Amino acid sequence: MGEHTVTSFDDDLEEVDKLIREMGDLAGSMIGDATRSLLSSDNPLAQRIISDDAIMDAKQRELDERAITLIARRQPMAQDLRAVIGAIRMAGDLERIGDLAKNIAKRVGAIGQSTTPKSLSHSIESMAEMVHAQTSGIVDRYVGRDAEALKALRAGDEKIDIKYTAIFRELLTYMMEDPRNITACTHLLFCAKNLERIGDHATNIAENAYYVMTGNQLPISRPKLDETAVSDATA
Amino acid sequence: MGEHTVTSFDDDLEEVDKLIREMGDLAGSMIGDATRSLLSSDNPLAQRIISDDAIMDAKQRELDERAITLIARRQPMAQDLRAVIGAIRMAGDLERIGDLAKNIAKRVGAIGQSTTPKSLSHSIESMAEMVHAQTSGIVDRYVGRDAEALKALRAGDEKIDIKYTAIFRELLTYMMEDPRNITACTHLLFCAKNLERIGDHATNIAENAYYVMTGNQLPISRPKLDETAVSDATA
Repeated sequence: MGEHTVTSFDDDLEEVDKLIREMGDLAGSMIGDATRSLLSSDNPLAQRIISDDAIMDAKQRELDERAITLIARRQPMAQDLRAVIGAIRMAGDLERIGDLAKNIAKRVGAIGQSTTPKSLSHSIESMAEMVHAQTSGIVDRYVGRDAEALKALRAGDEKIDIKYTAIFRELLTYMMEDPRNITACTHLLFCAKNLERIGDHATNIAENAYYVMTGNQLPISRPKLDETAVSDATA
Repeated sequence: MGEHTVTSFDDDLEEVDKLIREMGDLAGSMIGDATRSLLSSDNPLAQRIISDDAIMDAKQRELDERAITLIARRQPMAQDLRAVIGAIRMAGDLERIGDLAKNIAKRVGAIGQSTTPKSLSHSIESMAEMVHAQTSGIVDRYVGRDAEALKALRAGDEKIDIKYTAIFRELLTYMMEDPRNITACTHLLFCAKNLERIGDHATNIAENAYYVMTGNQLPISRPKLDETAVSDATA
């Protein structure tokens, strides 16, 4: 009977994890598509991301319902309970990632046809790729229960912060060069900031996943590069 | 015995609510102080907010621990369980509010001594007051279990979004007027955006609180004014 109960809990948790994986996959594609829609002024693609976000929200609600039902039915103790609460938190971060991608897509109309300098487009695209790889990598390591690999992945967020600082500086330069660039650059600035914040949410997921798996906090605190940069007159 | 168990759950939940109230009070003072430190280049005040955020984080960890222990010990069903999960979520939003206030405070060094035009300072200060009142009001209504009042308070977020759009436009104007304003205005833009996001977190808290109290979603979806504004070339 004890054995049976344990197996049922694991089955239920697997269903919850399946939703985390689906949300992770959706988040990954939204990050790439949102950036592409912004840089190529692709309105239909932007609209698709806005619909994707509604799917993301629905998946989070489903996960929350399942997790709460799971707790109520199985009444898990200590570590199992932490796993379920951890999943609720990770779903919360994935939902925010969806919101941030949607916010990027919503700026397509605002930027309009103003052309983004090639080098800047390239930087923002490459930042989006880093953020996508970071998010998907962390979700994969959680689903595969690979705690050690999570430690290594955290360094990825440092690289994202460095990239953000570089883009921030580049954008300021364009704005100073020609006031006609200011409106478009402001939206690109928020786009880059959203990507940087997606990286932070991915780090939150890594921290939660590590805690669920090991019962410990991730050993080295995430380097707060963006914050160091602030005193150096960037954001 | 049934009676006794119920009372104990309520006592435990009251302890959790006490932490929500403390986090709400701290969030309120951080919002006002962060904005003041930025507009008056007050470095010692900025440092205090950065320490306040560590206190906020500690309170959230304490609440999480208490909530998880509460679930494990009392094994609450349905509605009680939702109340505890709701409290964990509200604490998550309050912690984010602390982060956003800290991020404002961290920009004090970056803006330096560049003076902010009086009318702009006034607008940002008044936006911070709106956001502070909104956050405190919602936490008070949750602690006082006043679901009806929460409905009315949601309209406050609409006013905050309108204010944000006005400040965004004002900042663009200053940047276009003189490129030397660009760096400082960019930080003020993030400051205003952070205040707007704090308003969104307060709305999340209102939604969670209403759900905990009534078991229903808040009836009218929050007006997404910032998003409408995007297609009108603001953020």
